[in-house]
Amino acid sequence: MQLLETLCRVAAPSGNEAPLTKFLLDYIQRYQSSWRTLPTLLQGEEFQDCIILVFGKPRTAVFAHIDSIGFTVRYGRQLVRIGGPDVETGYQLVGQDTEGPILCRLVVDENTGALSHDFHREIERGTELTFQCDFRETETTVQSCYLDNRLGVWNALRLCETLEDGIIVFSCWEEHGGGSVAYLAKYIYETYGVRQALISDITWVTEGVQPGLGVAISMRDSLIPRRSYVERIRRIAQEAGIPHQLEVESSGGSDAKELQHGAQPWDWCFVGAPEDNVHSPNEIVDKRDIASMLVLYQVLLKRL
Amino acid sequence: MQLLETLCRVAAPSGNEAPLTKFLLDYIQRYQSSWRTLPTLLQGEEFQDCIILVFGKPRTAVFAHIDSIGFTVRYGRQLVRIGGPDVETGYQLVGQDTEGPILCRLVVDENTGALSHDFHREIERGTELTFQCDFRETETTVQSCYLDNRLGVWNALRLCETLEDGIIVFSCWEEHGGGSVAYLAKYIYETYGVRQALISDITWVTEGVQPGLGVAISMRDSLIPRRSYVERIRRIAQEAGIPHQLEVESSGGSDAKELQHGAQPWDWCFVGAPEDNVHSPNEIVDKRDIASMLVLYQVLLKRL
Amino acid sequence: MQLLETLCRVAAPSGNEAPLTKFLLDYIQRYQSSWRTLPTLLQGEEFQDCIILVFGKPRTAVFAHIDSIGFTVRYGRQLVRIGGPDVETGYQLVGQDTEGPILCRLVVDENTGALSHDFHREIERGTELTFQCDFRETETTVQSCYLDNRLGVWNALRLCETLEDGIIVFSCWEEHGGGSVAYLAKYIYETYGVRQALISDITWVTEGVQPGLGVAISMRDSLIPRRSYVERIRRIAQEAGIPHQLEVESSGGSDAKELQHGAQPWDWCFVGAPEDNVHSPNEIVDKRDIASMLVLYQVLLKRL
Repeated sequence: MQLLETLCRVAAPSGNEAPLTKFLLDYIQRYQSSWRTLPTLLQGEEFQDCIILVFGKPRTAVFAHIDSIGFTVRYGRQLVRIGGPDVETGYQLVGQDTEGPILCRLVVDENTGALSHDFHREIERGTELTFQCDFRETETTVQSCYLDNRLGVWNALRLCETLEDGIIVFSCWEEHGGGSVAYLAKYIYETYGVRQALISDITWVTEGVQPGLGVAISMRDSLIPRRSYVERIRRIAQEAGIPHQLEVESSGGSDAKELQHGAQPWDWCFVGAPEDNVHSPNEIVDKRDIASMLVLYQVLLKRL
Repeated sequence: MQLLETLCRVAAPSGNEAPLTKFLLDYIQRYQSSWRTLPTLLQGEEFQDCIILVFGKPRTAVFAHIDSIGFTVRYGRQLVRIGGPDVETGYQLVGQDTEGPILCRLVVDENTGALSHDFHREIERGTELTFQCDFRETETTVQSCYLDNRLGVWNALRLCETLEDGIIVFSCWEEHGGGSVAYLAKYIYETYGVRQALISDITWVTEGVQPGLGVAISMRDSLIPRRSYVERIRRIAQEAGIPHQLEVESSGGSDAKELQHGAQPWDWCFVGAPEDNVHSPNEIVDKRDIASMLVLYQVLLKRL
Repeated sequence: MQLLETLCRVAAPSGNEAPLTKFLLDYIQRYQSSWRTLPTLLQGEEFQDCIILVFGKPRTAVFAHIDSIGFTVRYGRQLVRIGGPDVETGYQLVGQDTEGPILCRLVVDENTGALSHDFHREIERGTELTFQCDFRETETTVQSCYLDNRLGVWNALRLCETLEDGIIVFSCWEEHGGGSVAYLAKYIYETYGVRQALISDITWVTEGVQPGLGVAISMRDSLIPRRSYVERIRRIAQEAGIPHQLEVESSGGSDAKELQHGAQPWDWCFVGAPEDNVHSPNEIVDKRDIASMLVLYQVLLKRL
């Protein structure tokens, strides 16, 4: 879990993903020679801060978003949200402006809900603040800010180790309205003819999806994927005997939104471990669900 | 109206349109030899569950969505919406899971508005339920669930009989956020250079659009089409002496949303009969409006 | 400011931009010979009512939307909104239907908020009404309806006079959900390889952005642009010593929405003067902010 902890500690809110992109490029450079298959690396200005890895003859693409929620400093001490962070007075925030590093606390006005910080000096307008990482590991759980979606990124990187045929995509802006998957999906479909997608992301513990019972296969959230594709995934998971849970929600979204609405006929399915304390500094995931997530991805990339 | 009744009886909620796709492919196979022009049929995985029919040298494309509203079984007896169905305790719902066919009633919690079913056993998670079809015909009206949009599909199929130049599109997911028109529109524009669209769908009876007074030509709903294109359509309808009504709304949408927001310069206009009891099991349409809808489409496909 | 006044007086609400398109085509035809560089003009049905001007070897595209907010006549005396106009009983509205020119007042129902007009006769269904233009100029300010975005259009036209390398885009539907930038952006990226954008539009006076202190460079609104691109723009503005203000908002949008969500990797930044009395007949802008806006665009198009 050292890799996961490192991923959680890199600040990369939507729009400023470059630090995590840099980390991933270094990581890929260093470790790809130990992977079963050497991928083709696609990156650079035409992909902004995204990365695509192409292994063998791909039939399926895995999307893991690298951005996180956070806050932007507005005027005076005011903060505005990046994505939909949980807010509670006292949450520790970190950042950096031209005057130096920042460590402060989030303040939520009890009456208006307005957000501010309590740093001893004014912070430069437009500076991003993210949750301070307090990474906690037990025998059965990991807990930290940003498991959503550093765990999805971790799953994708671990998948790279044994992958023979497939595409791994590290995308941007997912937490704040999207903005990269449309062009990534177009490029992949037009270049490789791939139109099957899996969303390597983290979902919610609910009354129907409990920690420890396996990775969630989502039958729908605010959007509804094509039934026949989800059925194929369920069947593969069942036949392989991998612990999993079926999720049915009416809200929530993921990188799949851009696949669904883009100008290519993508089939997609969200497959990810559930977490509790969503979008807070205390996101927590059961290790058994992480394990079944990785195993299911390994099997799906072979059989889909 | 036998064809219309058959169309209304096929369960095909957004995301699981395959049963209606199969019906339409069979229908086209059987009847196309009697049509004035033999179309080119485009279908298969690259179009998911959509179908495109290309007649002659097309200048205009007609979009008819084949999906319907409905419900997904969540956890326990809970239901979540597919699209925006009208809800009332007692509405009859039908479906199918691995244990067999389902017939039950919708239950709406009076206090919370929460939706559930009253079937005698638990229904498999993720199962889709749709309204049970009670098709009623009088001398002047048809009434059923899913006239929206099986009537638009019916109109498109009848239009095929005499069509010489044009494209007919059967699209998916319209009731639940869209997801197919973006790639269909891209394919059609890039392959045939066609950028004129008509939306063969059903609208609402309002204070300004009354049953029996003719098909509605919509000047706007939540979106505003290009004025010059709508004016051309109005002029053709007037010159042909076809009964019609002008609709002006601030809400509502259709497959046109994806045309408007897609990366091709589509001109579009919603042209469809009005219905009352929208999105309920008791949608009702005046037969005169069905007749003027079909006639207007026949004229428009010739003159646009 | 005569050009600006003329632009403000042309009625061109979203969906019916053709009158302003015609004015711009005439203006370009008449004045382009006096510009430093003769542009290539792209227009016609494949661009609907939009216009693209390509100068030299472009690296950056400037988007200025030509549509405005307004009202559509519904049934009886009812009005529905085009975009998000400010509404107040007594605002003067103008329009035209087949019976002749229209001058009337907006009426806002105090209890329901419903909108209507007080014209002496019924107005034809679907007719568009816009604010009557009362253009007021002082030594330090200009005031009128539709400075948003006729001032952005004016800025783009003035920029044409000295531009050597760059693209100027006049877009449609920005005030009402968008609908042209997706295809314009695709065409520009695929034809010229350009993926840097500036949004020539008008923003709001707020507690952090004051009239007279210079053009606003927006670090975010409802969407968040790529940090590294905004930083480049800030640096160029600083080095050039051009008065400017940094804006940080959580709401609001622009043509950039379609760039962000489109299938090309556009970097974008909103750069525009702030106005007060937003979306009313009395929009007001400080002339110093207009001046710094134009100068900043001139510098940015050279250095980006």
